[in-house]
Amino acid sequence: MHTPGPIPHADVPQLAASLAAQLRARSPRVHCITNAVAQNFTANALLAAGCVPSMTLSAEEIGAFVAKADALLVNLGTFDRERRKAADIAIVAARENSVPWVLDPVFVDRSPPRLEFARMLIARRPAAVRLNHAEFTALAGAGPTRAAVMRYAEDHEVVVALSGAADFVTDGERAVTVANGDPLMAKVTAMGCAGSALLAACLALERDALRAAAAALVILGVAGELAAATSEGPGSFAVAILDRLHGLDAPALTTHAKVSE
Amino acid sequence: MHTPGPIPHADVPQLAASLAAQLRARSPRVHCITNAVAQNFTANALLAAGCVPSMTLSAEEIGAFVAKADALLVNLGTFDRERRKAADIAIVAARENSVPWVLDPVFVDRSPPRLEFARMLIARRPAAVRLNHAEFTALAGAGPTRAAVMRYAEDHEVVVALSGAADFVTDGERAVTVANGDPLMAKVTAMGCAGSALLAACLALERDALRAAAAALVILGVAGELAAATSEGPGSFAVAILDRLHGLDAPALTTHAKVSE
Amino acid sequence: MHTPGPIPHADVPQLAASLAAQLRARSPRVHCITNAVAQNFTANALLAAGCVPSMTLSAEEIGAFVAKADALLVNLGTFDRERRKAADIAIVAARENSVPWVLDPVFVDRSPPRLEFARMLIARRPAAVRLNHAEFTALAGAGPTRAAVMRYAEDHEVVVALSGAADFVTDGERAVTVANGDPLMAKVTAMGCAGSALLAACLALERDALRAAAAALVILGVAGELAAATSEGPGSFAVAILDRLHGLDAPALTTHAKVSE
Repeated sequence: MHTPGPIPHADVPQLAASLAAQLRARSPRVHCITNAVAQNFTANALLAAGCVPSMTLSAEEIGAFVAKADALLVNLGTFDRERRKAADIAIVAARENSVPWVLDPVFVDRSPPRLEFARMLIARRPAAVRLNHAEFTALAGAGPTRAAVMRYAEDHEVVVALSGAADFVTDGERAVTVANGDPLMAKVTAMGCAGSALLAACLALERDALRAAAAALVILGVAGELAAATSEGPGSFAVAILDRLHGLDAPALTTHAKVSE
Repeated sequence: MHTPGPIPHADVPQLAASLAAQLRARSPRVHCITNAVAQNFTANALLAAGCVPSMTLSAEEIGAFVAKADALLVNLGTFDRERRKAADIAIVAARENSVPWVLDPVFVDRSPPRLEFARMLIARRPAAVRLNHAEFTALAGAGPTRAAVMRYAEDHEVVVALSGAADFVTDGERAVTVANGDPLMAKVTAMGCAGSALLAACLALERDALRAAAAALVILGVAGELAAATSEGPGSFAVAILDRLHGLDAPALTTHAKVSE
Repeated sequence: MHTPGPIPHADVPQLAASLAAQLRARSPRVHCITNAVAQNFTANALLAAGCVPSMTLSAEEIGAFVAKADALLVNLGTFDRERRKAADIAIVAARENSVPWVLDPVFVDRSPPRLEFARMLIARRPAAVRLNHAEFTALAGAGPTRAAVMRYAEDHEVVVALSGAADFVTDGERAVTVANGDPLMAKVTAMGCAGSALLAACLALERDALRAAAAALVILGVAGELAAATSEGPGSFAVAILDRLHGLDAPALTTHAKVSE
């Protein structure tokens, strides 16, 4: 008989606080295959949180980078031949070196070849996939109801982190809802990509992908809430969230975390 | 006999106010083929103004993106083979789907092959071309006098938006001068590229390209003036202009617009 | 008998002040082959300092850009086939047109093919190479002791600018230590790349590469110290350093410069 694990949401705020501190103390290396629009902000978000980002896409060298990395992000934005080839090599290197990886299937609802490629990647077992409602619908062929998302996660043995007004994270059996964040996050390009990179960074330190994903969403969401409080618009918000990621401490995270089942 | 339309400059401030509001309400999709330097800032400027940017260059998928877009920008900065091919496919898709497009022939004065490519693109009828004095001189083979610019616009059936101390917009028959903006705009990379992207966004809502271009220049210029008033240099200016684009309202636009014939 | 030149460190602060003013007055053109992560920030740092950046990588046109440039940067971050080919063409054009160039061998310690390529470039005589301790160790096959760095510079007839808690610059005979900067500089992506671009810009105006490198490090380091004083984290720091680069004056530079032998 299958025994579900303990309800995971109760300890997510403490885990977020612990991981935020560990990111700074241990500086995991996170290799990112990501789109050109997002590379700079993603690198800065990882640096602000304490990580060491790398971004090369070159077929000759990405294997060496991933082999020495602690986590890998594969983001499908502005997805060209070079990035597809890089992803292929990187995923092989990740498997060989037990490096956990995250898939961010940006805009698969807008491009049939990208959707097909994303499905092929899902079959290669990322630890987690992070996407929005339209992307989930395209990928799963069904709307993002709670049941459909849990079934998809179970069927594909992947943690799904579905972003939305509240974020929903599930491994098919357990589920966590994270209600942190601010509407300005949707007005800054690459904010979702940076979130997926932080998820990869948390996976480097916490191999339970459900808990790592929930903690990463708390970290980004709380940083976003604190940043919004001092911002005048999306420009100053994008700056402030980097400052907040850099300075996040346990009291801020445990006080502001909004985690439920 | 040809009857010129009404003098267009009088209603440009009101049009700018109306378009700024419509961009937020209707969130047009703007696909951008743009240089790697400009992608992030351009995406953030479009998001701040209320639009949905996309940036893929992949030959396999750009057609699908453009077909569902409301406007297209073709910017020639850091112009490589991938972007030339992307432009070719995108312009075909734009024509088939009646998506208006804007050409920004960055640095054609610095590179003969880029100049040749830009001339080929002009022949494929963008709704508007946005450039500076050096770029116009290279493209037209003549200095940017008012008469030369109007003749070029008429001959090529394109709206020319010539940037400078004051911006000059013409369709060969009608002409509008927009005197908004701030010198700091020249100290931030991609500011012109973002302006061309906003022009494309305005074209999605206003098909008279002369009026759309003038309104877009007012929107960017007024945001720039308001941003400069609170900035300490080009770094804080680039942040503040995104905040101002996000918050622009009709009173600010109609009060600050400097539009003449 | 070889007579060493005058001790160079004494006049570096004045030189930095002079070059900061000349960058604004003469606006040298700096062509950058740099990684996608760094392009935007590098362009903005050059613009803030008064320069005119260009960034194209296209094989068809990079020769024309470099031929008209006043300095060239070759940065190996995210180094792919396109950039290797671009570097090859650019270095030929630089030699033919006496354009000084700087090598920034980013992450050669992480990728064997990149290391091999960097060694090949060193043999083609950049005026200066800027790198950190891990990169030097990989390149030279020896740890970055003062003696090892001076020997490497002498053997390869290149100025080495070694970044660290204090920066060390040598041409193998003369040596200067620059102790300016702030820890936040390591928390913003592309800060080192922007520093190498400023070094190239200073080379456009001062052909003694040792003095140009030392002055560039003072300019960036003092801007960083002034920026840190008003920043809340890496986000606001990255904005403030652009503001400070734009506004740097002689009193600030000569007061804050920390230069020794």
